[in-house]
Amino acid sequence: MTSTTRPAASAPAAMRESVRVSLGARSYDILIGPGLLAEAGAEIARRLPGIRALVVADERVAALHADRLSASLDAAGIAHSRLVLPAGEPTKSFAHLGEVVDRVLAERLERGDAVIALGGGVIGDLAGFAAGIVRRGMRFVQVPTSLLAQVDSSVGGKTGINSPRGKNLVGVFHQPALVLADTAILDTLSAREFAAGYAEVVKYGLIDRPDFFRWLGENREAIFAGGPERVEAIATSCRAKAEVVAGDEREDGNRALLNLGHTFGHALESCARYDAARLVHGEAVAIGMALAHRFSVAEGLCPAEDAAAVSAHLAAAGLPTTISAIPGPAFTVDELMDKIAQDKKVVRSALTFILTRGIGRAFVARDVDPASVRRFLAAEVGC
Amino acid sequence: MTSTTRPAASAPAAMRESVRVSLGARSYDILIGPGLLAEAGAEIARRLPGIRALVVADERVAALHADRLSASLDAAGIAHSRLVLPAGEPTKSFAHLGEVVDRVLAERLERGDAVIALGGGVIGDLAGFAAGIVRRGMRFVQVPTSLLAQVDSSVGGKTGINSPRGKNLVGVFHQPALVLADTAILDTLSAREFAAGYAEVVKYGLIDRPDFFRWLGENREAIFAGGPERVEAIATSCRAKAEVVAGDEREDGNRALLNLGHTFGHALESCARYDAARLVHGEAVAIGMALAHRFSVAEGLCPAEDAAAVSAHLAAAGLPTTISAIPGPAFTVDELMDKIAQDKKVVRSALTFILTRGIGRAFVARDVDPASVRRFLAAEVGC
Ligand SMILES: NC(=O)c1ccc[n+]([C@@H]2O[C@H](COP(=O)([O-])OP(=O)(O)OC[C@H]3O[C@@H](n4cnc5c(N)ncnc54)[C@H](O)[C@@H]3O)[C@@H](O)[C@H]2O)c1
Ligand SMILES: NC(=O)c1ccc[n+]([C@@H]2O[C@H](COP(=O)([O-])OP(=O)(O)OC[C@H]3O[C@@H](n4cnc5c(N)ncnc54)[C@H](O)[C@@H]3O)[C@@H](O)[C@H]2O)c1
Ligand SMILES: [Zn+2]
Ligand SMILES: [Zn+2]
Repeated sequence: MTSTTRPAASAPAAMRESVRVSLGARSYDILIGPGLLAEAGAEIARRLPGIRALVVADERVAALHADRLSASLDAAGIAHSRLVLPAGEPTKSFAHLGEVVDRVLAERLERGDAVIALGGGVIGDLAGFAAGIVRRGMRFVQVPTSLLAQVDSSVGGKTGINSPRGKNLVGVFHQPALVLADTAILDTLSAREFAAGYAEVVKYGLIDRPDFFRWLGENREAIFAGGPERVEAIATSCRAKAEVVAGDEREDGNRALLNLGHTFGHALESCARYDAARLVHGEAVAIGMALAHRFSVAEGLCPAEDAAAVSAHLAAAGLPTTISAIPGPAFTVDELMDKIAQDKKVVRSALTFILTRGIGRAFVARDVDPASVRRFLAAEVGC
Repeated sequence: MTSTTRPAASAPAAMRESVRVSLGARSYDILIGPGLLAEAGAEIARRLPGIRALVVADERVAALHADRLSASLDAAGIAHSRLVLPAGEPTKSFAHLGEVVDRVLAERLERGDAVIALGGGVIGDLAGFAAGIVRRGMRFVQVPTSLLAQVDSSVGGKTGINSPRGKNLVGVFHQPALVLADTAILDTLSAREFAAGYAEVVKYGLIDRPDFFRWLGENREAIFAGGPERVEAIATSCRAKAEVVAGDEREDGNRALLNLGHTFGHALESCARYDAARLVHGEAVAIGMALAHRFSVAEGLCPAEDAAAVSAHLAAAGLPTTISAIPGPAFTVDELMDKIAQDKKVVRSALTFILTRGIGRAFVARDVDPASVRRFLAAEVGC
């Protein structure tokens, strides 16, 4: 918890980055840097004068950081209340969605007022979905507190919850008005969660930034330790995501590339019943990316040494890269295939996967034969 | 139930109207005429080739019309299943939303597949909302079966459910891909529901079509009896709504005019706890429009004879025009004011109402003094 004592004002200006997400009338800024939480009130008040707000946080993040956010909102004259929810993936449910919606209405917030999500991707997805449906869309500010949320889930407007039938199957596109990524807040994140978020950072390199992937190889330790490299890695990730989102807001085309590792990953999470003790999202993505590369090798698309380099980098960051690395009962191929077919990226029975021709050369493959996926997985579950 | 035996093929082409809702990539057609249900399958298949579908209907409409829709879908080769829900406003709930969503997922429908709403505004709003959030938006076809749904709720993409804290407080904008309004299907609608829908038809005249209001005065009986005048009244209403929607898809500006009678109306429905035995939506709108005109008179904006003409026309159509006409315990001014303040059209405490300078001259009044509304209602609840 060193970040709570580090004075925000001392953060050098050079350690502040800003990324613009260009979406016409729905454009917004992502501010990135250590100590931003203390400036949240001022930044919000400057952009959204006169609003009232509901802060939504999970119990863990609320205990660590919500009072500092409240102090900052108070100082800027932003009247607000707080809703604290249980931590963990099961909070992305219909029941908790109803709870957030009801609280927003109970506070009589109007369309121009804001829901502020203080937390990881779970709180961001849930609170953003609620903001997207109360009065058919009210304002929404993201204060992402996990690495995964800072580089991925808080950017791009995808919000949603899980269904017993699959992950993120229900939701809306609803862009935030502002994203405030305090990079020092990550100091309280567990090493496991930091590594999980780092999987999504690596993803941007693997999609179409081979230089960034190489840079990560040289700076991984500094990023984990938290210096200017951390700010830079997060800003580059946000920039990468912002570019894809600006070109394809509603995921009709190339935005699908962001799902590298996610078709396998979601199936794994689902088979593990979203049990964080077994697997968290970023770990599933790490395994999924490793699988996507090895499957691409098996399909004769990708050099074997690229797949090996990906696994080596992820493993060095403390991430799992094989299905059998997941603790608990083994998954069957049938279970996995069933989840893959239910994945929302399925388009009329042909399987859609993000495959790759090598590091930084991912592409959308729309006609993947389910039989070859099954053969590939049969070999993988055995490893 | 004369419509069930009337052969669709015999409907003269002159009795078919088509209205285009122009919203760029989200544009769609409203087809209007007697016997269209029999052509639903062909019209859908032509526009959305290869889809599968879930038909959502309430128990009353399902019993009367769902088999004919199914036959038409079957004939066009559209694989589909059916979900039947209880009839009535309480079905617009979080619980039923979850039920529709779950069924869509259980049927493994994909983004390109469709939810088909066969029913009144309740089913259209609920099924449309579900289609808007499953996989962050899948296709959606409206087959409105009540007059209210044909002239109002099925057009424009507003979908949603009620909250215990107010009506339609939760939802999304999600445009249908097609609206099929079979005007003969209205023959099975109760006289009370037909009249209720007629209130929304009158609304379009009152907003900005004084000639249409006069035409309605001359053709009301023919419209109720169901001849070419019915098709024309519905088409004119759809055209009026389509124009407003095209100019203001997300209700940031003039679309608010469509809420004429609705701020009062929603408050009345809410005070009556959505009990259809006491009050249905169109009746609430009829009273609300009469109130909006009388309030405009009280504010010195509107000639008294215009308000009288509005009430006379609504009363001739069998609609209520006063608060005291609502059966059951009387409402207090406090209750009503409380509901009005919670209405979603409230913008930062000043009350927004649709007021009028006379028949066909409605406007958005953004700075209505709550005290004068209170005084006005105090006199009205006594009548
Ligand atoms: N919307 C999108 O585009 C998108 C993209 C990727 C992932 N996601 C979603 O994001 C979710 C995963 O996000 P996540 O990994 O942030 O999960 P999370 O929100 O559950 O956070 C992980 C854990 O870290 C804790 N935590 C968060 N910030 C902390 C901090 N600063 N200090 C201490 N503890 C902290 C949380 O309490 C939680 O226990 C998944 O539900 C996934 O589907 C969404
Ligand atoms: N989305 C919008 O823009 C919009 C606009 C106006 C109203 N609405 C909503 O619409 C709802 C009211 O719509 P409604 O009046 O159609 O209510 P409804 O759907 O409950 O239908 C009214 C009754 O008529 C029955 N019915 C419908 N069609 C029939 C037919 N052909 N034959 C016999 N019975 C039939 C239904 O079973 C129901 O009992 C409200 O919830 C209101 O909020 C939405
Ligand atoms: Zn992810
Ligand atoms: Zn209405």
